Amino acid sequence: MQLPSGLLENAVAQFAKLPGIGKKTALRLVLHLLKQNEEEVNLFSETIAKMRREIKFCQRCYNISDGDICSICANSMRNKAVICVVENIRDVIAIETTQQFNGTYHVLGGIISPLDGIGPEQLTIQPLLHRLESEPVEELIFALNPNIQGDTTIYYIQKKIQHLPCKITTIARGIAFGGELEYADEMTLARSLANRLPVQQYVKG
Amino acid sequence: MQLPSGLLENAVAQFAKLPGIGKKTALRLVLHLLKQNEEEVNLFSETIAKMRREIKFCQRCYNISDGDICSICANSMRNKAVICVVENIRDVIAIETTQQFNGTYHVLGGIISPLDGIGPEQLTIQPLLHRLESEPVEELIFALNPNIQGDTTIYYIQKKIQHLPCKITTIARGIAFGGELEYADEMTLARSLANRLPVQQYVKG
Repeated sequence: MQLPSGLLENAVAQFAKLPGIGKKTALRLVLHLLKQNEEEVNLFSETIAKMRREIKFCQRCYNISDGDICSICANSMRNKAVICVVENIRDVIAIETTQQFNGTYHVLGGIISPLDGIGPEQLTIQPLLHRLESEPVEELIFALNPNIQGDTTIYYIQKKIQHLPCKITTIARGIAFGGELEYADEMTLARSLANRLPVQQYVKG
Repeated sequence: MQLPSGLLENAVAQFAKLPGIGKKTALRLVLHLLKQNEEEVNLFSETIAKMRREIKFCQRCYNISDGDICSICANSMRNKAVICVVENIRDVIAIETTQQFNGTYHVLGGIISPLDGIGPEQLTIQPLLHRLESEPVEELIFALNPNIQGDTTIYYIQKKIQHLPCKITTIARGIAFGGELEYADEMTLARSLANRLPVQQYVKG
């Protein structure tokens, strides 16, 4: 596909870098933007840059936040003694959508995956251990995708905190093995949260 | 879907305005950008804004261009005596990809569609008539989508220029009625360009 303009070519290349967007779709999106007012395109462009520049991560749970502490951690109605450990922000959004969980979160920023070069030090595991030592946490719920990497991550963290008195659970395997948490329907996700199991039983440890 | 940040919400809303992008896909794209360096996101954002701000339309054929005259019109190897009339820039790209056409283009910027409030004056028909009067054009090829609006547009322009000596043709109906030009495979498109018909025969006029 030969494009008639370098400016157009660059814009298409930028869109085509996004996940799931091929060159033809990128061209369609760019030509759509080209039909909009200059102000609207500037608003689009500036909103994206501003989001990246100004967005913060909660200093407590590493969720996305507009301030130093996210709206969930800052909410006095949420039960701070229950922490749900998730891989990423999309999982927080998915669980929040079920409206069945009243605790707080801890966003790991990934899961342990040696093949991808992701070890415990790349994740927010150290801050999680610090939280568990310094806060009166009663229960730690693992809500990780049910696959090998998720299991490894649970096992690693569980070994680190087995001396602590807090209860350690994991959401029930209502979700098919190899499935993706964020695409589960709300009922399945809510039920798997309600039927969580003690982690000793889960990892047969 | 409740998002934990206003900045994120705004960015998702901007992406969700693009054609074919829903809120869930928009969130995925935004979270992908959030994982990139700030410089990369600024490059993305600035490339889009710059494209909209600086892109020009060729003063001769209304194709997208980096300068006053597009690279096709400026190319001395292209046959200026043959003009291919298309609806939009995507159609130029589609025909260029066949590598079977050595003439120049005229981009109408749409087709006559009274139901959508698009009449001849919203399109670049007047500049096309001016080109035909002032340039030694031998052949005018209509490469419009084969539907009612495309036929109406051909009929309108043909009536306006029937006093001129230039040959008027249309690409062959190799493409199914109601189909979209830009999605045609290259073979079909190239063949329909090779088998173009005199417009009198086509509109049975």
